[in-house]
Parts: sequence; structure tokens; C-alpha cells
Amino acid sequence: MVTLNCDMGESFGNWRFGDDAGIMPHIDCANIACGFHASDPWTMLKTVRLALAHGVKVGAHPSLPDKEGFGRREMKLQPEELTAAFLYQIGALTGMLAAEGSELTHVKPHGIVYGMAARDKDTALAIAAAVKPFGVPLFGMAGTHHETAAAELGVEFVGEFFPDLTYAPDGGLIIPRVQSAIDLGQAEERISRALTRNEFVATDGTVRKVSFGTVCIHSDPPNARDVAALMRQIIDKHA
Amino acid sequence: MVTLNCDMGESFGNWRFGDDAGIMPHIDCANIACGFHASDPWTMLKTVRLALAHGVKVGAHPSLPDKEGFGRREMKLQPEELTAAFLYQIGALTGMLAAEGSELTHVKPHGIVYGMAARDKDTALAIAAAVKPFGVPLFGMAGTHHETAAAELGVEFVGEFFPDLTYAPDGGLIIPRVQSAIDLGQAEERISRALTRNEFVATDGTVRKVSFGTVCIHSDPPNARDVAALMRQIIDKHA
Amino acid sequence: MVTLNCDMGESFGNWRFGDDAGIMPHIDCANIACGFHASDPWTMLKTVRLALAHGVKVGAHPSLPDKEGFGRREMKLQPEELTAAFLYQIGALTGMLAAEGSELTHVKPHGIVYGMAARDKDTALAIAAAVKPFGVPLFGMAGTHHETAAAELGVEFVGEFFPDLTYAPDGGLIIPRVQSAIDLGQAEERISRALTRNEFVATDGTVRKVSFGTVCIHSDPPNARDVAALMRQIIDKHA
Amino acid sequence: MVTLNCDMGESFGNWRFGDDAGIMPHIDCANIACGFHASDPWTMLKTVRLALAHGVKVGAHPSLPDKEGFGRREMKLQPEELTAAFLYQIGALTGMLAAEGSELTHVKPHGIVYGMAARDKDTALAIAAAVKPFGVPLFGMAGTHHETAAAELGVEFVGEFFPDLTYAPDGGLIIPRVQSAIDLGQAEERISRALTRNEFVATDGTVRKVSFGTVCIHSDPPNARDVAALMRQIIDKHA
Repeated sequence: MVTLNCDMGESFGNWRFGDDAGIMPHIDCANIACGFHASDPWTMLKTVRLALAHGVKVGAHPSLPDKEGFGRREMKLQPEELTAAFLYQIGALTGMLAAEGSELTHVKPHGIVYGMAARDKDTALAIAAAVKPFGVPLFGMAGTHHETAAAELGVEFVGEFFPDLTYAPDGGLIIPRVQSAIDLGQAEERISRALTRNEFVATDGTVRKVSFGTVCIHSDPPNARDVAALMRQIIDKHA
Repeated sequence: MVTLNCDMGESFGNWRFGDDAGIMPHIDCANIACGFHASDPWTMLKTVRLALAHGVKVGAHPSLPDKEGFGRREMKLQPEELTAAFLYQIGALTGMLAAEGSELTHVKPHGIVYGMAARDKDTALAIAAAVKPFGVPLFGMAGTHHETAAAELGVEFVGEFFPDLTYAPDGGLIIPRVQSAIDLGQAEERISRALTRNEFVATDGTVRKVSFGTVCIHSDPPNARDVAALMRQIIDKHA
Repeated sequence: MVTLNCDMGESFGNWRFGDDAGIMPHIDCANIACGFHASDPWTMLKTVRLALAHGVKVGAHPSLPDKEGFGRREMKLQPEELTAAFLYQIGALTGMLAAEGSELTHVKPHGIVYGMAARDKDTALAIAAAVKPFGVPLFGMAGTHHETAAAELGVEFVGEFFPDLTYAPDGGLIIPRVQSAIDLGQAEERISRALTRNEFVATDGTVRKVSFGTVCIHSDPPNARDVAALMRQIIDKHA
Repeated sequence: MVTLNCDMGESFGNWRFGDDAGIMPHIDCANIACGFHASDPWTMLKTVRLALAHGVKVGAHPSLPDKEGFGRREMKLQPEELTAAFLYQIGALTGMLAAEGSELTHVKPHGIVYGMAARDKDTALAIAAAVKPFGVPLFGMAGTHHETAAAELGVEFVGEFFPDLTYAPDGGLIIPRVQSAIDLGQAEERISRALTRNEFVATDGTVRKVSFGTVCIHSDPPNARDVAALMRQIIDKHA
């Protein structure tokens, strides 16, 4: 059964980001920012409550320590330093969950470190090592070091498909600095193709295979809640 | 049985603070800084390992979010904001403990918020509310809102005595900006008096009663390891 | 000649805040956030360029060091510490101005420290001491310590009137956590009354005198650009 | 006339770093940390005062925005973002200097970005662009992009020699995470060779030419003040 997940709780203090309230009714899993690229403790607590109120599963969305760059600027951390940074963030979220009587269900790395780990095994191993103690699955890109590192450390792995982003010819994601409205027709076409034929079309027209157990959308496009509702509908119909 | 605890892991990145290695062999409980007034994830992980290697119990030492002020500048947070900040920090530490296969044993608030909570019930309740989900005792000052707030929320409470600090006539602690060497004779006199007669002498000469189950020392005086060794010896002799 | 000023450049990294582009054509003076409660170096540079492109004068909008709280949480800094924090921020903005071949024209403190300085002379003196070396006027509330501290240190002072905020009976400002749309009719009435009779009506109906040389508006209400255009028009008509 | 410079003011809040007081009497130029990799506004102000009290010239020591990593972790900023970050830091220091009635004399980049700029022209140009508006020289490594970028933008350049660090065979510096005591005999040999023959011996024994107008030492080795005194003496004798 394919699930629908979304990066959530990416406001910070007085700054708003993403239509969390509009998206939460449609998704299965919320990847909640942990205060390093976005969010703060109070925002985290409120986001966890919002997710639980909708019966949505709560995962951690840890990142590099860089709010100014929203976790999208490459930084070179030593592997153990990265593991510690992820243990810290995931642990912090479990604190919020403990307060609400609930439990962590998954981990989904954020931003540039997601891409770095796909390409670099040491980075992927450092991340998987931080997920392992929590006994939950890692969401990532199948066929990259995400998957092999998880396998190597005995961490459950769930592949993702991204219907609201564009794939480069090498299978990497192209992340816009500012999200504009998602073309719903295109998103529908992408998700349907992925669900029925396990493939996507990269920017150069090449067709590539994709293995996934969860579909990831983002909270910041202006029509994010419409995207969420549409993806929900298509996934349910497909099931 | 009175225990000996110490605030630990207060280095940050490249900056060193406190003689953790020299103190750890002598104490029962380490209150480990959680990245808000001091420390960073990697330092936390290494401090947790150091504590566990010495069989020392690991508690959280959360604080206001203010590294520049070392958690010693008063900040006005809303109660739920403070609870969330503490849940975040305590949770982060449990992440490190999970990685090392161990568990949280207590929480001891740091710096100015420790004093604020002693004087202000809402602050004390906000802190106790963050400790409650973890099911561990709160270390604090008996007879202040630390104790009453813990009681109100059903959180176990353990009173502290501070042989390396001076008490003001109102029972509050006087915390020097930079620690100089502790007078060992004076510290011995203070701890002995507290252990045998449950009292201390404030700066104005008045004698006050003190109820405590743990003795707290600090890691930054130049002779911190000697203080630790001496307190250990006296506590053991007294037991 | 009364001028129109606005707090600007309060985005941070990936987070947007305020309709700077829509407001800049209408104002005389931009108070640009300096990276402590909002903004970052790149945002500052772009905001300075936007202001200069519209012939708008550039002043500093320094604050307490607290992005998570948007400079709206009280923090106790020592006076010299506060002076240093303001020297740092004002200096940083002059760096941007140097790069663009322009100069600083004024300083307007942000958020809670604005109110703290109105009420507390030491805070006001600490701020005025940081403005003095730059030889520019301080924008503040006439009749408060803003004005007396400036006078004491020989710093030029310009009083402000706030047509988009509500005044408490004691003359203090009531700052909403999230700005909703400004009632244009009410704002027009307020500014007209202030311009023609130098008075405003507080929340309890009492009428108070206000002395001002500049009118301050904010960038975050949804109709901020309409407020700006309207204030511009009324000020120009009055001149 | 070769000068002696030192990276200074690298404490942060409650954390001490470097023997500034012991070194200041011996040097000509202080490169003062600007709050991004180390320091804070109050520390900067006090460091500026200490330098001026000793008649030492004050330059900026800007870096990447990374206190946790002490500016020693590589981060990928866009060139204009880096220029803005440097304008911010240099400007902030000029604010402190304005308060003390003095002026900026030079800029010396810190840590990993120093090495990045040596190897990458875009990084070097981004830095030189931030120095240019201040009309002061850039300290850097001769023969690298430091020098060519400065030349390209019309920024004065002064080459550095490092007697307290080891040079890799490619001419790059090897920076230890924690500084141990400097071998004075070795430092003397290095500086004498550099002053008399404009050359140094890399770790592999190869002899390389070095062009420099200033000698850089660091504040954190345990015997930093002895190194400073010795370098002072040798430079003066050579002059």
C-alpha cells in the first residue's frame, strides 16, 4: 500500500511557511522539521499536535544545521558529527511525541543532505546510523546510497516518488528556490505513471524506473492543498 | 543515600569548558547540556559516552535558548513555549542515549531559568510539564516552586545542595560570571554541615535549613576535579 | 516636513515577510532589519538596493538577538552589551551602504526593546550611545526615555506616530503577533487627527497629545501597500 | 617593513579562547573575529578597545557563518551571498571602531574560506568585492587567487607568512583542530628563513618561495604570547 507523505512544520518563529492545515487532512505521514533548517520547539509541538489530530503518522525531517540556507547549502560535516546532528533532531521530535503520548514512525532527511546522501555512501551511512536506534524506517530514494546504507545497517527502507518535482536525467531532483503553483495535470500524469508503470520521465525525456512505497509532496506551492487532495484521490483509487 | 551530580558537557564546538574527564570518575549523575546554553550534538554524544563509560547516570541540563549568554540572561518565554523548548532538549538527549543503549535518569534545569522557576510558579509548572512525559525526577531547590510544581504535576522531585556556590540571605544562589578556584576547606565545611545538620550559612550569616537528596557541583572552577574528589569522599563517609 | 517610514527587510533566508516591493515607492525612510530579529546579510544587501533604487533613505532597525522570537521577547542584557549589539547591527548596515555608495540616515530600534527603552532610562541610554558615533537621528516615541536619553547624549531625535497600531491608555503601543488587514478608514482618521491636531485616541477613549516628525507603518499587514499609498497621499496633502 | 598580525577576539560569550592580553603588546595588526565563526558584539567591542589601547591596528577577520564549526567546515554559499556576509561582518567591526573613534585598517579572511578562496577564483572575487568598499588591503596568500582577485578588483593586497603552521607540499596550510604548544626553535627557523630568503620548507621537504608583507600568528597555542614576543623580536632585528 503506497502512502502519501509531506514535509511539514517548516515555519520558524514569526515566519510562516507551507499550508500545513490544508494538507494534513490528505496525507498519511508528516515529515516534521526538527529545528535545524526550519521550525523551533513550539512550532514542532504544534505541528505534532496537528498531525496527531488528523491521525497522521509523525516522522522526523532532520537536516544540516543551517536555518539561513534552509538546509539547502552544502556543508561538510564529519560523519560522526552528522550522525550526532541527526540523533539530536530525531530525539528532539520524540520528546514532542512523548508529551503527546505518541511515537515516531519514520525519518526522512531534508534538503541538500538528502541529495548528498544519495550520492555519497559515507553520508548515507552516517544518516542510517542515526535512524537505527529509533527502530523506524528511513524514507529515501531507491537505488541510491540511501537504500544500500540502510540495508548495510539493518535499517528498514521505504523508497519515495516525487510527483511535484522535476527529475534530472541522472535521477536527481531539481528543487526550485521558490515553489510556484504545481501543474495539477502534470502531477496527475506523473503519479499515475509511477503507480501503474513504476517509471518517470526526466527533463531530457528519458524514461527511468522508480521503486517506491511512499509518495512525497511539499507544503509550500501556493496550491499545495489541491496537490495533496489530488494525490490522495489517485493513490486511493489505485490501491 | 545522597548522590553527587555535576553540570557537564558545556563545551561548544571549538570552545572548551569544564574538566569533564577529571570529574566524571567521582560523580553519580551527570547533568548534560543540551545545545541551548552550551554544547552541540557531537559534544553531547561524546559527553554521554564519557558518562556511561564511568557508570554515571545521565540527566538532561536544559536551559533558555541563549548560547551567547550561556543561559544566564533572563528571557521572557510564554509557558508553553518554555515547555516545548525543554521537551526539545530533553528529547534530543534521549536520542543520544538511545544510540548508546541507555536511558535518561533525571532533569536538572540550567542557569537563570533555574532561579526564575524557583521564584515563579508558572515557569516552574512549564518546566515540570516538560519533565513529566519522561517519567524521571526533577532536580531542584526544595521549598521553592521547583518542588511545588513537581508535586502538582506528579513529577518526582529531588532537592539539591550546592557546596561550591554561595547562598544569598533569601536562599537564592549567587552565580559568579567566571568561576575561580573553590576553597576546599570551605566546601568541606559546607557539605559536612549540610549532610549532618541539613543547614547552610547564607552570606549575611543567617543559618537556613536545606532539604536535599543530591549534591551539585560545577565543572568550571580550576580545581573542579579536586572539589569532586573531596565531595565524593565526604558523601561516601557520611553514608 | 513629516516623513513616512516603514520597517523593512524582515524576511529571513527562505522565509518571506512583508510587502517591501509594494511599499518602497511610497515611503521616505526604510528602517532595515539588521540580522538579529530578522534578515540575513544577503537579504539586507538586496533590501538596501531596493530602497536606494526608489530614492528611499536607509536607516538601521536593530533589535535584541532573537530571531526565534522576532525581537519580541524581553531579554535582559547589560547596558554595555546592548550598546555593543546595536553598534554591531548598525555597523553591519553601513557595510551594505558602503558597498552601494550610500550612507546611513537614521536608526529606529525594533520590537520589544523599543518599548523597554521607552520605559527604562538605562536601556534608552545604551541605545542612544550606540547611535551617537554614527551622527544620525534616533527615531522613537517623544516624551519617553527615547527622547530624554537622546538629548542627554546629544543625539538628534525624531518622534514617531503609528497610524497602523493601537495605543494603550498609557501611550504604549499594542503590537499584534500576526498583523491582520488595516482598516484604511481608521488609519486615515488617525493620521489626519495626528497631523492636524497632534493627538490620538487610546483604546480607552482618552485623547492624548503626540509630537512627531515621522509616521511609521509596518510591512506585514496584507494591505500594507495600500496603507503606504494612503499615508503618502495624506502626508503630501497636509504638507 | 614586514608587520606582525594575529587572529584575535575569538572568545564567544562565556567561552574563552586565545591569550589576547598576552599577545597584543607584541603585534602590529589585530585581525578581529566578527561574530560569525567566533566572538559576539560585546567581545568585539572589548577586543577593539584592547587593540587600540596597545596602538595595534584593527582589521576584520570575517568568516563563514558557522560558530559550531568555528568557520572550519566547508559551506557552499553563492558568491553574492558570501560578499554580503563579508560586508556585514566588516561593517559590524567598523561600527565598533566608530564608537572608539578609530578606523579599519585591513581585512583577513578566517578559516576554511581562506583556503577555499586561495583555490577558487569566484570565492576570492566574492571576498575582494566585500573588501573594496572599505578601501583597505586584503591579507592573503601571495600567488593564489587571493592576490589575483584583489588585483582584478583594484584592492590592495598584502601577502602573509605563517611561522606557527605547517605548509603542505602544494603550499596550502595545515590547520590543527586543537593547537598544541609551538616549537619556538622551529618557529624561529621558519620566520628567519622566510625573512632572509623568502622561502619555507613544506612537509615533504620541498623548498618553496613565499612573498609576504606580514607575518601571521595565532592566539590559541598554549605558548602564544611567547611566540608573539619571539616573532616581534626577530622581525624588529631583521628590519
